[in-house]
Amino acid sequence: MARSDGRSDDELRPIEIRRGFQQHPAGSVLVSFGNTRVLCAASVTEGVPRWRRDSGLGWLTAEYAMLPSATHTRSDRESVKGRVGGRTHEISRLVGRSLRAAIDLKALGENTIQLDCDVLQADGGTRTAAITGAYVALADAVTWLGAKKKLADPNPLSCSIAAVSVGVVDGRVRLDLPYEEDSRAEVDMNVVATDAGTLVEVQGTGEGATYTRDTLDKMLDSALAGIAKLTEAQAAALAEPYPGELP
Amino acid sequence: MARSDGRSDDELRPIEIRRGFQQHPAGSVLVSFGNTRVLCAASVTEGVPRWRRDSGLGWLTAEYAMLPSATHTRSDRESVKGRVGGRTHEISRLVGRSLRAAIDLKALGENTIQLDCDVLQADGGTRTAAITGAYVALADAVTWLGAKKKLADPNPLSCSIAAVSVGVVDGRVRLDLPYEEDSRAEVDMNVVATDAGTLVEVQGTGEGATYTRDTLDKMLDSALAGIAKLTEAQAAALAEPYPGELP
Amino acid sequence: MARSDGRSDDELRPIEIRRGFQQHPAGSVLVSFGNTRVLCAASVTEGVPRWRRDSGLGWLTAEYAMLPSATHTRSDRESVKGRVGGRTHEISRLVGRSLRAAIDLKALGENTIQLDCDVLQADGGTRTAAITGAYVALADAVTWLGAKKKLADPNPLSCSIAAVSVGVVDGRVRLDLPYEEDSRAEVDMNVVATDAGTLVEVQGTGEGATYTRDTLDKMLDSALAGIAKLTEAQAAALAEPYPGELP
Amino acid sequence: MARSDGRSDDELRPIEIRRGFQQHPAGSVLVSFGNTRVLCAASVTEGVPRWRRDSGLGWLTAEYAMLPSATHTRSDRESVKGRVGGRTHEISRLVGRSLRAAIDLKALGENTIQLDCDVLQADGGTRTAAITGAYVALADAVTWLGAKKKLADPNPLSCSIAAVSVGVVDGRVRLDLPYEEDSRAEVDMNVVATDAGTLVEVQGTGEGATYTRDTLDKMLDSALAGIAKLTEAQAAALAEPYPGELP
Amino acid sequence: MARSDGRSDDELRPIEIRRGFQQHPAGSVLVSFGNTRVLCAASVTEGVPRWRRDSGLGWLTAEYAMLPSATHTRSDRESVKGRVGGRTHEISRLVGRSLRAAIDLKALGENTIQLDCDVLQADGGTRTAAITGAYVALADAVTWLGAKKKLADPNPLSCSIAAVSVGVVDGRVRLDLPYEEDSRAEVDMNVVATDAGTLVEVQGTGEGATYTRDTLDKMLDSALAGIAKLTEAQAAALAEPYPGELP
Amino acid sequence: MARSDGRSDDELRPIEIRRGFQQHPAGSVLVSFGNTRVLCAASVTEGVPRWRRDSGLGWLTAEYAMLPSATHTRSDRESVKGRVGGRTHEISRLVGRSLRAAIDLKALGENTIQLDCDVLQADGGTRTAAITGAYVALADAVTWLGAKKKLADPNPLSCSIAAVSVGVVDGRVRLDLPYEEDSRAEVDMNVVATDAGTLVEVQGTGEGATYTRDTLDKMLDSALAGIAKLTEAQAAALAEPYPGELP
Repeated sequence: MARSDGRSDDELRPIEIRRGFQQHPAGSVLVSFGNTRVLCAASVTEGVPRWRRDSGLGWLTAEYAMLPSATHTRSDRESVKGRVGGRTHEISRLVGRSLRAAIDLKALGENTIQLDCDVLQADGGTRTAAITGAYVALADAVTWLGAKKKLADPNPLSCSIAAVSVGVVDGRVRLDLPYEEDSRAEVDMNVVATDAGTLVEVQGTGEGATYTRDTLDKMLDSALAGIAKLTEAQAAALAEPYPGELP
Repeated sequence: MARSDGRSDDELRPIEIRRGFQQHPAGSVLVSFGNTRVLCAASVTEGVPRWRRDSGLGWLTAEYAMLPSATHTRSDRESVKGRVGGRTHEISRLVGRSLRAAIDLKALGENTIQLDCDVLQADGGTRTAAITGAYVALADAVTWLGAKKKLADPNPLSCSIAAVSVGVVDGRVRLDLPYEEDSRAEVDMNVVATDAGTLVEVQGTGEGATYTRDTLDKMLDSALAGIAKLTEAQAAALAEPYPGELP
Repeated sequence: MARSDGRSDDELRPIEIRRGFQQHPAGSVLVSFGNTRVLCAASVTEGVPRWRRDSGLGWLTAEYAMLPSATHTRSDRESVKGRVGGRTHEISRLVGRSLRAAIDLKALGENTIQLDCDVLQADGGTRTAAITGAYVALADAVTWLGAKKKLADPNPLSCSIAAVSVGVVDGRVRLDLPYEEDSRAEVDMNVVATDAGTLVEVQGTGEGATYTRDTLDKMLDSALAGIAKLTEAQAAALAEPYPGELP
Repeated sequence: MARSDGRSDDELRPIEIRRGFQQHPAGSVLVSFGNTRVLCAASVTEGVPRWRRDSGLGWLTAEYAMLPSATHTRSDRESVKGRVGGRTHEISRLVGRSLRAAIDLKALGENTIQLDCDVLQADGGTRTAAITGAYVALADAVTWLGAKKKLADPNPLSCSIAAVSVGVVDGRVRLDLPYEEDSRAEVDMNVVATDAGTLVEVQGTGEGATYTRDTLDKMLDSALAGIAKLTEAQAAALAEPYPGELP
Repeated sequence: MARSDGRSDDELRPIEIRRGFQQHPAGSVLVSFGNTRVLCAASVTEGVPRWRRDSGLGWLTAEYAMLPSATHTRSDRESVKGRVGGRTHEISRLVGRSLRAAIDLKALGENTIQLDCDVLQADGGTRTAAITGAYVALADAVTWLGAKKKLADPNPLSCSIAAVSVGVVDGRVRLDLPYEEDSRAEVDMNVVATDAGTLVEVQGTGEGATYTRDTLDKMLDSALAGIAKLTEAQAAALAEPYPGELP
Repeated sequence: MARSDGRSDDELRPIEIRRGFQQHPAGSVLVSFGNTRVLCAASVTEGVPRWRRDSGLGWLTAEYAMLPSATHTRSDRESVKGRVGGRTHEISRLVGRSLRAAIDLKALGENTIQLDCDVLQADGGTRTAAITGAYVALADAVTWLGAKKKLADPNPLSCSIAAVSVGVVDGRVRLDLPYEEDSRAEVDMNVVATDAGTLVEVQGTGEGATYTRDTLDKMLDSALAGIAKLTEAQAAALAEPYPGELP
């Protein structure tokens, strides 16, 4: 049974990484995984939150959100509802945790990097696109801080981070699920890994079904192969010069 | 004293209107007034809110918001703060009121159009860019409803709507203020008007200063001339076919 | 077509300004525009909010609210709903902005004046009555601060401020609209001006209709004439001695 | 040791009950216990909340609040804080419970009476003034419903309700405490009773001290004598005709 | 008419006081009044809230809550609703006020004791069980502070505190009402008293009925006799050594 | 390097499962994993939420929370803060999703089961203890529904569900981490699985470190062996009769 967009089971959607989308944040990346588009901004503040002051350590945190118009049917705005939903909270925490795995907070010095991942268009895999794009925005923010001579150590990034979804659909292990597949997947897994192939986060969920260790292994194989390609795309994007004026 | 971007006092910033930016909403427009960029989406729902049912009338409402990364210094996310601020409320109400002036809610039939204006990048004039872009998104949503045979009357739009800011800066009346001018303007006015040159909304505020009727008149002259040009840009954009598939 | 209360088109409702209504705030004024009654209190705090400290400047801010029992049909209490509505926010901001135009914050010294405008009975024009009454309460609070030798400069008030509504009803430009007219007005404008006749704020809104510049001019003529009379009423009220004991 | 306002220990402050203060609610009473002034409104809605429908029973509920400007030092507005405080909740519940003791909800028919007690000026005893005034507003609302032929039974009020505070100050049992006494009372009690002298609610609290049964008895004696006088004042006020037009 | 559980009118339900239920708080008591079970914890923090610093005084505060699963029909979780209800607020304030009557805050030194009373199972009288158990937890926390040499004075507890409900059910004055009686009581009273028999708090409420002073007296007699027995049970429980390791 | 509690690396803490802890919910289980104690209640409502009506399907949802006194240092109450935190949301969703894997919602019929997992004492692994205990409470609730003849099908439970944590501490893969190990683990994984050994959920997180696939495999081996023992403990507990009266 073929995929509706004609891809093979282990093929990523077309990936696009556009740096410098906004002019104010130190890093701003519009990332596309097919029709999923996420705007990832890395804003820099000198200093750290009060509870971390005088520790010599920096801080990195993340917030994820969707525009109401990003989804097939319009979603209500969380600011108007007056509370952030469970799913939003969960993904914000995942993005922050994943990116903190890439950065040496001591080398960052007492600076704070705030990542904002705002989904402009949703077609499955928004959290993995967010992580993949946020890494590139983070790299730009680190470059900016370096140019401003604010880093405690010249290279606080110890690895690159990318993420992809994988799942079981129509009984087959498939990579980078669009909404149409995601919504009917029997198993759904998100994998975050480094350019060295080590794991940062694995979250595999049976959706009304359970799965065997053998399936888990096949999903991991597919995800890690996909992440290797995403890592290449990130490196290619970052090979270009910083998209703007450095301080 | 020249303007920092070299414009003459009565000159608009470069205007860009890009239809079809998102694929899910019936209308989706990315509008730019110079560096100010607002994503305006018009989502359509069949039916109206409970309090309006069986009235034979449609409904149109709007929400305005800013991405945290849109501003020079990152702003806190209103969903995280758990409440929508006064400025956001005020602009959301202005956008909705302005666009309702363009539409015959009886002709719309019992359908609801929700406008979402999300500022991707802020450099002054975000509310006027939002209104100007939202009109184009609204026109696309009406076309979509027409193609779906859902309108009570084929042409519910009675006029087009555009808006621009004008103010007194350095003692001179100037059009379409960027942030650098807006933040130090002595008087600040937003004008919303139709393609017939009639007024929809005039909001003129002395910022720590007061102003004479003569100044009010000069500001209105400048704003209405600017709105005429914005109206042309809207018409040019809408002269192209609907950007997507009609039902 | 005559007005339901028999007034001519450019006539104000009976105006009453009662100083010293409450004993705790430094200024407390019960203002009536016909059946609209607003209690305006000016409370004084020594010192300014944290973000303004050591600036040498004072601060003035305002909050507007309605008693649930003030309206024809009882309105829900915003404290119980847990959020302040858009209209309340908008008017609070308008009142604060308008009154700040009257006061030299440097001359005020590092003191804060908080204006509270609570509508006891609503019959149209509550925001303009609030601004008109708040000015008188502000004047009393300034007198009180002067008596306490807390002002940086003896006369921080540079002008007086008053406000009135005007609109197009039954095709005619009419002044100071009661609820019955306001609710069916085609155009609705609020004008805030000084005793010198200069403008502080002009907000004109077409309600489902648009209006010409000629109508705008006629509305301004009527509003400014009305404001001149309100200014006289304020001056007459303030000609009496301070209603209470000065420190 | 004499009381600062010269009253004897068992003397009430001057009581004033002004009916018809507002024109919209069916009952509206401004009650004064000395400098404490509370605006009590009784608004009528036909029908009852969803959970009570088709029970044949009416409903009565109450909300208590203070204007920010009512207190010696301005208090923050609960709507702005986004939550109703514990003290406000507690008093709202007490007022509703107390007034429900006076009314036969079956005789009321499926109507809802909402009592709003808004403190315009606070000088101790605001909750007891609120209950005493609310009874009069309730009586007016019942008259109004009777005139509208909406009552299931002509006389749903089985008794009148009044309330007073009493406490131990300077070692003496004193009636109707103003703020100056209330804030340093060793024991503080609020008593709600009927015109028949039966008890509706007794709340006696040691403030950092405990008290004997003998003291409790003396406080009750004083409170019940005070309530008898308040009951007379209510009856005198209600002896006048309904202050407005009946339907 | 006999009570459904066979008790005589002035008999308490079986009382159980289990110290050391949790290991983290300095005091942790599971108290049972029949089927009502409340977990009372006393947590100690060195230092006091900001507004009390450098006063030489300690602080004690309390929070009461119910598990959703504690009630006959599951109740909604207040954290999920996003606001604490009126009843919860009221009882939290009552518990804190009652326990503060037992402690000399000067002798406590600048320490804070936070009492948490969480109802695990509700069968009437949860607030009185909470107060009775909280006193025992408080005594343990004081012992712990003494062992840590943190008290300003060796014995900050001036008395013990216990509480019981009493009411009129089936026309009879009955002690310690279970839910089945409480829900249909004509009068409901909660009494908090010391081991010396002096009163801390009396709250008597007619539920749709009123009551005479004679009934009030009978209820107080019964309550004070019950409290004497609860005081004995507290003393017996506290006669055992501190349940855990002292610092 | 030995574990501080003397266990071998692949050994569970002492497990206790106590059914019938509360009398109101259809299932109520107090589960202990060492010092971690979670009260798991399964409350049954006939009918389903509005959005699911007439689908023929039942519903199961879960809420997780901690008592303030459960943690080493007291935590603030989420109801008082007015919002549920990200961690709480995340675990509530995990518990619900995991238990839904065990139940055939069609066989359940149009009934709702609400699981409440309230942590009474926290010492690491609260979420895995919650899932393990919640399964037993769920089984009791299903028995209760069966006795009430409310099930669409006699056996809606297709498998049993248990969960355990596993991590890398001191460079070694260890099972069922207490707080002392959890707080310094390099990798932290939670595994939810069935009695057939198939996976429901795998969440593995590097905490400031990344991990290899080999480590992932070892952690899974250890977790699945632990879950097999938890499954036995559940079965032993459920071999006893229903702890209470069946309808």
